[in-house]
Amino acid sequence: MTTDKGSTRYHHGNLRPTLLSVARALLEEGGPTALSLREIGRRAGVSAPAAYHYFNSLDAIAAALAEQGFAELGESIDAALAGPRSHLLAGGIAYVAFARSNPGLYRLMFGEGFQAYSKGNEEIRTLRMRVYRQMKDDLEKRLAPGDVPNAALFLWSLTHGLALLMIDGQVEAGADPDAKVEEILRLVGMGLPAAR
Amino acid sequence: MTTDKGSTRYHHGNLRPTLLSVARALLEEGGPTALSLREIGRRAGVSAPAAYHYFNSLDAIAAALAEQGFAELGESIDAALAGPRSHLLAGGIAYVAFARSNPGLYRLMFGEGFQAYSKGNEEIRTLRMRVYRQMKDDLEKRLAPGDVPNAALFLWSLTHGLALLMIDGQVEAGADPDAKVEEILRLVGMGLPAAR
Repeated sequence: MTTDKGSTRYHHGNLRPTLLSVARALLEEGGPTALSLREIGRRAGVSAPAAYHYFNSLDAIAAALAEQGFAELGESIDAALAGPRSHLLAGGIAYVAFARSNPGLYRLMFGEGFQAYSKGNEEIRTLRMRVYRQMKDDLEKRLAPGDVPNAALFLWSLTHGLALLMIDGQVEAGADPDAKVEEILRLVGMGLPAAR
Repeated sequence: MTTDKGSTRYHHGNLRPTLLSVARALLEEGGPTALSLREIGRRAGVSAPAAYHYFNSLDAIAAALAEQGFAELGESIDAALAGPRSHLLAGGIAYVAFARSNPGLYRLMFGEGFQAYSKGNEEIRTLRMRVYRQMKDDLEKRLAPGDVPNAALFLWSLTHGLALLMIDGQVEAGADPDAKVEEILRLVGMGLPAAR
């Protein structure tokens, strides 16, 4: 959904998705710290009280955005794991691709900028655990039960770290970032001889 | 260096380290978003102009803190790699241990909270690359040259992601977090059969 800044008025009925859509655009423009209820209201062309009717705090809108993000990330991983290339690698590639396509949202989903409103947001923590469980469920089909927890944390750490380093522009990914991600994730299966 | 909040006055000569020390304590109490020049001055017991004489922006003090952090992290990795247990694993363990001991500083070193003052701070980016080069230098002694760049990015992603998930309290590390870190990093050498 696109909005013409300040020039459009919405029926109350569809204001919630409009506010979320506007907030998400703002998030991708300026990162989690750029979120502001006043600016969201301004861009949606509604008064602050109208916006407050739907989200009574920045925390509430951030939590709703994170929920949206985790739902999309979960679907994306599910689709990758169920795809023709049914392989752990596909899940990891989908994970990093989601973060790269939604850098502001991904940072928010991991609490960045949240500190100001509600750091230990339990709701977000629960959503994060759902993605973790998704990885674990897949690993349970492939590994001995005792190996699953560490393998899942290993994979999550790797994909989370790689996603953030790429989002931060800290990594020279070259002309084809997807190929770079795949090269890195292939090392999961091979291991590094140097670390033996 | 410790400071009694607001109760001590310092000679100008040692105000810079005092301001940094106070800022670092503030950072660990409330995270990068808690940094404020006014609060730093208040805790150091000096006027805002006196503080401004040393750091004319929050950006300047954040950059100085990050520089301090990268120097300490670099020393810690060097010491681990040179130690009796000379092994890649020791470097990774030291990396995650540093982040766990300095969570606010570690987040700042990777730009969190910086957005408000100066996101693409080139100085910080250069410091980060120095740590990356340190990992690469060590890997060059252990791997074929062509394998080094991806191996370094793989290791950095894994340690960065694991550090952040632990800092965020997202991981149940159990009674002995150091042992958990070691278990995860041992998978680097073994690889995951499920991903082959």
